[in-house]
Amino acid sequence: MTTVAVVGLGIMGAPMARNLLDAGFDVVGCNRSRAPVDAFVEAGGRGADDVASAVGTADVIITVLPDAPDVAEVTSGPDGILAHCPRGALHIDMSTIAPAAARELAEAAAEAGVRSLDAPVSGGDQGAADGTLSIMVGGEAADVEEARPLFEAMGSTIEHVGPSGAGQTLKAANQLIVGGTIQLVAEAIVMLEASGVDPEAAVPVLAGGMAGNRILDRKAEGMLKRDFTPRFRVDLHHKDLGIVLDTAREAGATIPLGAAVAQLMGAARARGDGQLDHTALLRLVEELSGRSGE
Amino acid sequence: MTTVAVVGLGIMGAPMARNLLDAGFDVVGCNRSRAPVDAFVEAGGRGADDVASAVGTADVIITVLPDAPDVAEVTSGPDGILAHCPRGALHIDMSTIAPAAARELAEAAAEAGVRSLDAPVSGGDQGAADGTLSIMVGGEAADVEEARPLFEAMGSTIEHVGPSGAGQTLKAANQLIVGGTIQLVAEAIVMLEASGVDPEAAVPVLAGGMAGNRILDRKAEGMLKRDFTPRFRVDLHHKDLGIVLDTAREAGATIPLGAAVAQLMGAARARGDGQLDHTALLRLVEELSGRSGE
Amino acid sequence: MTTVAVVGLGIMGAPMARNLLDAGFDVVGCNRSRAPVDAFVEAGGRGADDVASAVGTADVIITVLPDAPDVAEVTSGPDGILAHCPRGALHIDMSTIAPAAARELAEAAAEAGVRSLDAPVSGGDQGAADGTLSIMVGGEAADVEEARPLFEAMGSTIEHVGPSGAGQTLKAANQLIVGGTIQLVAEAIVMLEASGVDPEAAVPVLAGGMAGNRILDRKAEGMLKRDFTPRFRVDLHHKDLGIVLDTAREAGATIPLGAAVAQLMGAARARGDGQLDHTALLRLVEELSGRSGE
Amino acid sequence: MTTVAVVGLGIMGAPMARNLLDAGFDVVGCNRSRAPVDAFVEAGGRGADDVASAVGTADVIITVLPDAPDVAEVTSGPDGILAHCPRGALHIDMSTIAPAAARELAEAAAEAGVRSLDAPVSGGDQGAADGTLSIMVGGEAADVEEARPLFEAMGSTIEHVGPSGAGQTLKAANQLIVGGTIQLVAEAIVMLEASGVDPEAAVPVLAGGMAGNRILDRKAEGMLKRDFTPRFRVDLHHKDLGIVLDTAREAGATIPLGAAVAQLMGAARARGDGQLDHTALLRLVEELSGRSGE
Repeated sequence: MTTVAVVGLGIMGAPMARNLLDAGFDVVGCNRSRAPVDAFVEAGGRGADDVASAVGTADVIITVLPDAPDVAEVTSGPDGILAHCPRGALHIDMSTIAPAAARELAEAAAEAGVRSLDAPVSGGDQGAADGTLSIMVGGEAADVEEARPLFEAMGSTIEHVGPSGAGQTLKAANQLIVGGTIQLVAEAIVMLEASGVDPEAAVPVLAGGMAGNRILDRKAEGMLKRDFTPRFRVDLHHKDLGIVLDTAREAGATIPLGAAVAQLMGAARARGDGQLDHTALLRLVEELSGRSGE
Repeated sequence: MTTVAVVGLGIMGAPMARNLLDAGFDVVGCNRSRAPVDAFVEAGGRGADDVASAVGTADVIITVLPDAPDVAEVTSGPDGILAHCPRGALHIDMSTIAPAAARELAEAAAEAGVRSLDAPVSGGDQGAADGTLSIMVGGEAADVEEARPLFEAMGSTIEHVGPSGAGQTLKAANQLIVGGTIQLVAEAIVMLEASGVDPEAAVPVLAGGMAGNRILDRKAEGMLKRDFTPRFRVDLHHKDLGIVLDTAREAGATIPLGAAVAQLMGAARARGDGQLDHTALLRLVEELSGRSGE
Repeated sequence: MTTVAVVGLGIMGAPMARNLLDAGFDVVGCNRSRAPVDAFVEAGGRGADDVASAVGTADVIITVLPDAPDVAEVTSGPDGILAHCPRGALHIDMSTIAPAAARELAEAAAEAGVRSLDAPVSGGDQGAADGTLSIMVGGEAADVEEARPLFEAMGSTIEHVGPSGAGQTLKAANQLIVGGTIQLVAEAIVMLEASGVDPEAAVPVLAGGMAGNRILDRKAEGMLKRDFTPRFRVDLHHKDLGIVLDTAREAGATIPLGAAVAQLMGAARARGDGQLDHTALLRLVEELSGRSGE
Repeated sequence: MTTVAVVGLGIMGAPMARNLLDAGFDVVGCNRSRAPVDAFVEAGGRGADDVASAVGTADVIITVLPDAPDVAEVTSGPDGILAHCPRGALHIDMSTIAPAAARELAEAAAEAGVRSLDAPVSGGDQGAADGTLSIMVGGEAADVEEARPLFEAMGSTIEHVGPSGAGQTLKAANQLIVGGTIQLVAEAIVMLEASGVDPEAAVPVLAGGMAGNRILDRKAEGMLKRDFTPRFRVDLHHKDLGIVLDTAREAGATIPLGAAVAQLMGAARARGDGQLDHTALLRLVEELSGRSGE
């Protein structure tokens, strides 16, 4: 039976670990703070006090962490995964980090005799809870096949798109389109309202034609109500757009809209909306249009 | 039985007139060049030599013309609709023009004792042929209800969104989102290709998640094949983005992405791609990324 | 002795008329409101009650008005210049309007047997008072030579740059660079302050090197003090950037920075800074950087 | 007598070392490739085979290198400056690198008992040869005073703007304004030419008014002649704009024009103009305006 160590039991990692547990894997959870570990143990999982003991006998180690430095420390640090996991184990990083950082992790793992995949996800906490995440995988085909049963316990779309880093590159492309689409919808809503056109009547028409997109389907209603209860925070999207710009720069790709959206998301964060849902870009567009009072 | 005059039997107007005919209306068609009129007569419609004779006994006059100056001349010119149609008739302009221009037409019509609606459409020549257009209507509710049977013969989504000009404002919002989405998808594709990630595998993942949109669903395949057979031309979208900018400026709405997309669409046109499908923005992004040879 | 009618005795027109008077021309002033006319008469000029009487015996008619519609009405309206000035007179429009509008005025004048020049200025109210304006002239060389003595009474730089409209095109290019430079300086100042670098020490270094420009020389000090006492208002620069975009679009020129600056100037206006100096773009950049409290 | 080691005798470092020599300092030069060292010895300086021997007895060590990784290796590597220079020596890095990287260097130096300054320059190879560079210095005031005689041998403007990294932050602000100004001038020139206005006549008017800047003064003539003989290369400015974006992001400053210029400079590089002068942005604007053939 496959033993899986999950490092990082946060808003994403906790439900992902539970789904692995429910799928019948032997799962040991570990987290910087203790509470999530206790909760996981209560749910029937095994808990570990630190990374070293969590990964000591693991066949597969999954990391779900906020940012690249966290992943680097947990992976390559003296008390980290590579120092303590079995040779030949498979490390799957499901955090969102830069493709270049993912490739560095893969090289470090290879030198340590550990196999690795980058497998960032989209779908949010809801997708994590429902086991319907989209998982974008970079690495060796054989390793992807070995990991597929685990991926299928966590997600509904699993796509192997290339070598190490390719999963993160696709995640960056995803965040570029999502951020840009939110801004386009926000500009459209403000232009309609400023012109005296009822957006409640307009959104269905936009959603039904060539302008249709998932943001109009799932988030426009909240935007019209100015409900910015966070599902995915401006702060996190701001971090991701930094990755998008670095990815494009490294590849020599010119992305004028992506660069503009990164500035706008940064401005939304700077004005104090970092903890709101990324659809709060609407608040920025309103302010830029002299309508923030409304 | 309602007599409808259709002025402008082009790529959009011709199939729209046919659908009115098939729905049992008495339709008289008129066009600057004669051939489309003959074709319409062959299809069972009535033809007119000029606007004056076409609208002389019409209950409803529909204009489907390229740009605002054409509509203004056909409507308010000495040989135009207002000079020759019955008082109390209903003029429905289904061309895409600026909301301000639409309001001017409405005022001119009112002064002439003619009722009017602005009712631009989305859905393209295919939607026009299938009678599945989205029709965005501005004007008086009573006039919209009177026109509804005609709209239902031409489209599947009919939305009355406000007073005169509101239909055109919504069309502008639609073109803002469509143009921006094409550019975002183009930037994502070029970033993926420049990073060595297979876009064929990536597009389904993007389409299946929060980044999903109608462009990925319907046009990404053509973009990946570099097939830019025109459905909606760069030249027309460039014209529409001029309307978007004027609409936002008049309303005091700030649309940074819209303004950037307008420059990019203009650049696509300037480099000679005006007659290609608007997805040819991909060619521009490739050129800006040093990949145009590919 | 040349008789000059000056139509529009506003913040620019009044001092320009005075300088013509001081240069010994026979000057008759006219203005929508009466007070500026009385002040001009007190200064030794002649006053007129309306355009018709002002231009009736004029050799040269100068218009200095806020925007294109004002110029069009004063020029081509039933009580306007072309209807009442002597045939063969020279009309010089020194307002800032679109090149296309200037060409239309020239055509209307020509049809009426009146010669015309477009001659917008830069240098502001101070330059108008000092007679040190830069005057950018479009039209026939012979007419420019005839007008040169008048221009030399009002400005220190007089440049004939092409046919009708060319003066306005150059003015648009000027406003594009000025607006963009203010924004660049604002971004630099905010980046320095946000990084903890003293801008007082930094500005002289910037001004002394390849980054040097007239904004750093003349306006940075006020920007650092947050003194936005208007010399040239955001509202006017917003109007001018609309002309810049129309000029570029008509010529098929792509101006990505110009388009971005137009959105930012519009946002500065929308947030309520329209009556401040255009350097108030700094306030917008601070707000976008979460520093507006400072 | 002060002994100065200069590491990096490239297009900037070589003339800077010569000026130190001419000012009477004991200068030892060192460079990856040998030829520049021989040339420096021929000019009367001392040469060293490697960094270790160059800095062994130096009071001051100056680094003038292409990019951050070079500086990091030469400074902190096993064969580098900190490992071999006397404790208490002063390291002055005059390369252009990110402020964050400069602060890291300063910390590493402090740990090694070495004092340090960041002192990037502007003025180009000509300024380096003439000893008229602008030098922007970050670090301790006492160290700046100690280094002042050396700075005065290399530059005409020496400004201490803050603690470690402040010099690099100011250099970033400088490159933001310079890059943006070139793009604005390019857009203005193309808009004028596309409108049929003679730019030769227009540039002096622009340069003489509020739009005036050092690019118009020194580089517009070359731009009008399409002479892009490199003084400062697109590739280098592209690198610097990456630093600008990182600096702004780290400080939380929003710089929409800076972000747009970075994309345009990247596009100029991607299309193959990386080795041309940065004024080659004009070629990009022409291409975007369909005028590249001209």
